[in-house]
Amino acid sequence: MTSAIRLAINGASGRMGHALLALVRQDRRFELVHAVVSAGSTHDGTPVFGELSTSLRYAHGWDAAPAVDVVVDFSGPEGLSAALAYCTERGVALVTGTTGIDEALEARIADAEKRIPVLRAANFSLGVAVLARLLREAAAALPDWDLEIVEAHHGRKEDAPSGTALALGHAAAEARGTTLAKDGVYVREGRPGARRHGSIGFAVVRGGDVVGEHTALLLGQGERVELSHRATDRSIFARGALEAAAWLVGRKPGAYGIDDMLLERRARAVP
Amino acid sequence: MTSAIRLAINGASGRMGHALLALVRQDRRFELVHAVVSAGSTHDGTPVFGELSTSLRYAHGWDAAPAVDVVVDFSGPEGLSAALAYCTERGVALVTGTTGIDEALEARIADAEKRIPVLRAANFSLGVAVLARLLREAAAALPDWDLEIVEAHHGRKEDAPSGTALALGHAAAEARGTTLAKDGVYVREGRPGARRHGSIGFAVVRGGDVVGEHTALLLGQGERVELSHRATDRSIFARGALEAAAWLVGRKPGAYGIDDMLLERRARAVP
Amino acid sequence: MTSAIRLAINGASGRMGHALLALVRQDRRFELVHAVVSAGSTHDGTPVFGELSTSLRYAHGWDAAPAVDVVVDFSGPEGLSAALAYCTERGVALVTGTTGIDEALEARIADAEKRIPVLRAANFSLGVAVLARLLREAAAALPDWDLEIVEAHHGRKEDAPSGTALALGHAAAEARGTTLAKDGVYVREGRPGARRHGSIGFAVVRGGDVVGEHTALLLGQGERVELSHRATDRSIFARGALEAAAWLVGRKPGAYGIDDMLLERRARAVP
Amino acid sequence: MTSAIRLAINGASGRMGHALLALVRQDRRFELVHAVVSAGSTHDGTPVFGELSTSLRYAHGWDAAPAVDVVVDFSGPEGLSAALAYCTERGVALVTGTTGIDEALEARIADAEKRIPVLRAANFSLGVAVLARLLREAAAALPDWDLEIVEAHHGRKEDAPSGTALALGHAAAEARGTTLAKDGVYVREGRPGARRHGSIGFAVVRGGDVVGEHTALLLGQGERVELSHRATDRSIFARGALEAAAWLVGRKPGAYGIDDMLLERRARAVP
Repeated sequence: MTSAIRLAINGASGRMGHALLALVRQDRRFELVHAVVSAGSTHDGTPVFGELSTSLRYAHGWDAAPAVDVVVDFSGPEGLSAALAYCTERGVALVTGTTGIDEALEARIADAEKRIPVLRAANFSLGVAVLARLLREAAAALPDWDLEIVEAHHGRKEDAPSGTALALGHAAAEARGTTLAKDGVYVREGRPGARRHGSIGFAVVRGGDVVGEHTALLLGQGERVELSHRATDRSIFARGALEAAAWLVGRKPGAYGIDDMLLERRARAVP
Repeated sequence: MTSAIRLAINGASGRMGHALLALVRQDRRFELVHAVVSAGSTHDGTPVFGELSTSLRYAHGWDAAPAVDVVVDFSGPEGLSAALAYCTERGVALVTGTTGIDEALEARIADAEKRIPVLRAANFSLGVAVLARLLREAAAALPDWDLEIVEAHHGRKEDAPSGTALALGHAAAEARGTTLAKDGVYVREGRPGARRHGSIGFAVVRGGDVVGEHTALLLGQGERVELSHRATDRSIFARGALEAAAWLVGRKPGAYGIDDMLLERRARAVP
Repeated sequence: MTSAIRLAINGASGRMGHALLALVRQDRRFELVHAVVSAGSTHDGTPVFGELSTSLRYAHGWDAAPAVDVVVDFSGPEGLSAALAYCTERGVALVTGTTGIDEALEARIADAEKRIPVLRAANFSLGVAVLARLLREAAAALPDWDLEIVEAHHGRKEDAPSGTALALGHAAAEARGTTLAKDGVYVREGRPGARRHGSIGFAVVRGGDVVGEHTALLLGQGERVELSHRATDRSIFARGALEAAAWLVGRKPGAYGIDDMLLERRARAVP
Repeated sequence: MTSAIRLAINGASGRMGHALLALVRQDRRFELVHAVVSAGSTHDGTPVFGELSTSLRYAHGWDAAPAVDVVVDFSGPEGLSAALAYCTERGVALVTGTTGIDEALEARIADAEKRIPVLRAANFSLGVAVLARLLREAAAALPDWDLEIVEAHHGRKEDAPSGTALALGHAAAEARGTTLAKDGVYVREGRPGARRHGSIGFAVVRGGDVVGEHTALLLGQGERVELSHRATDRSIFARGALEAAAWLVGRKPGAYGIDDMLLERRARAVP
């Protein structure tokens, strides 16, 4: 295991942190060498894997961190700030899914991207990233076909359409040279009249414990194309973040997204 | 062809009339013996199949009708009124899809049902009738599962959800002892909040030339049931009416629906 | 919690036993009063919920069992044999998913069914049971439509089609007065020629970690009906067994299946 | 209509020829100026649109052809040979779906491509072409996900899997650096054992009057991507050929495919 990627998890006691820990234990590509929780966390100092056989304990900062190849961060703005300092100083790659970042922190991230590789994403599902890419292409290649997006989620979800459905809609709208503000249709009830050509419609299903499903329909005359993503397990977001971490190690400094990883794979394969 | 069912079509020059004629030509169960158009129609007196080889011509009434086993009517209230008189007098079975019937005509139909078999339906697709029946059963058998109905139609459709989607929703609501007025949800946009337990949600897709698709989802914990009907050809409504006509001949006087035909088939087969 | 159903789990350390324990902890309908493991099990005598706060410990038999309303058994022939003796003597309802039962044990079960209510099933998913019932009805109601069954499972599954797909096929074949031996089609490759009317085709998808999906297609002219079940979580089998246990308590002695529970629900709801 | 594209149809009395004629009548982009049938055809010399109002009559060759911008050919090798001579001499663009071409004719086509734009395709559905492109990308971007292809066609189809399913499989295999000869799996029955990693499985559904449906599934851990094409009307092939004809007019000499048209659209839209 000498050649394993040395991984640090920032925000290790959160929901994503737990999911990352569960995956890392079984993933031979990685050696977990540091797990950061917020200062004052009840986890601070306790064994990460709850066993005596491994000595790794949660830490509340980066002072005692051993040599690290890549940090995966799902901590929050404050935690990210500390990780940025550490990564920039040591030249460590950084994968982050932290959101709610203010201007000052954005500026620091932009600065860091000149010195280390930073990969950011709002949704680390590889499947959703691929779907978004395919949808852009299909929307552009079939400009006259009607475009609709259907999403389904569990009954506790409070917003509609889902953020991912809107992101897919934005991608499709951009590929067609328009915007959702102009062409999005979110409600059809009673007598809405004929479909306006060029509009992008959203339909929402709620119920059960559906993790998340998104289908983009491109409806032509006598034929259609349907592009779907179905998630059945919340661990896919952690899985995607680890995939991104393995890919990011050794890259040149810069700003990366999931799409860069996918495009590179495609470039290797599609003529 | 001596044992073929002698069929008359009432409203033979309308859209459904045309579809019926196209099917009947290729259906050996039937012999078309009479085809009625409205008085003053340009079709009156012209050959039904546009050829010299067959002598059948459109008629504007029932005076010259030969012996008939069953009348299929898609004419309108006035045409139906004349067909009712003819069928009742001669003891002929009647299949009708005419809508917009006033009280006086309803009373006459009820009267006729004492003397002849009458099968009425708003939608003659056998598949939709089966779907409605299955949905009632599933909604009752899985009372705690969340129920959603998704429908898709071509972009020219002006109402939403479709009449068939609402009919499916009514059937499901009834099977659960509630109503759409109480539990139907037609709009989800912005921040509608968590799904209310027991509600029945509708989602609408519009685009292309989709003839009509309806899916009922029953969403449980860790599993779901999906029941779909897809129409790809408008001829299915004419096809269902002919199926009903063949089934109705020889029945006792009474009021019948598509469901009676389906239930009888099921009774023969399901223990 | 005085009115909770007093539940015993037989085979509590197996995969289904664990799933049942996880659900029961959160299900207020039940009070777990006894949990049986095989004699010699390392669990024997240890606390069931791994905590000091509850005194319930695994037992290796029925001697020390307190008053019980219903036993849920996923133990194996030997364990079932002991549970049968206990239930029959005390008049306790029994739900069992044990398979591989020899003639002698079958005879004892038949005997027990005269004295206590016994519910048996090979697959405790309520959704699959509903799907099978709906499929029987659809296959009978649409006798001329082509019937196909598509199933998808994870890549480790070694048999094809799945047992559930075959069970669905049997149900459909029976509803049409035929058998899979006569009309099942399992391979289509190269130049199999036109589809034989009345045949029932199977198609198999393998990959990923798909828990289990089954779709029955009834394909007509210009329309179709699709009936699907999707499982996303293996806990559904334990969930269905608990549902059956709650339903079985207080029934008359006899042999029951999942279908009896579903039919009763339907009878309450569908006119 | 002076700026309409002047279109000639080669093979105008065949099935594709009829479909093209039906579409062209309603398509203002085109003016049909020549319609070629084989010498000796009963159509030769009769009015193309069966009416007195238009003077265009079927011709059995190119001698009397007026000025033409593009020829759409679905005639056969002999008819294509004559069209090639005409197009090359006059510098007319050529769209052809003729198959069964021998080496000598291939050489002539290659020669023509130096002088005129020639677009060839085996399947002119735009949706299928887009699906193939998207599948290549997804297969490359998600190299570890299991890949399966499901197709459904009407019951009269005699081969399995469909040519389009195999073409999709080839595209996916190529994107993954393998071949169907090595990794295609066409039969799963009885006890085929666990799925071999890297294999590409095919599943076949037959029944009803399904025009053609193809779904590629990429099955990962906890998530999947599904890419589908559904055809509901055979006219889509004629529609795609006309789309290609409109796009090809004015291009530089060369060999083109449907993909070139799609890629150009994409290039205009996707950054």
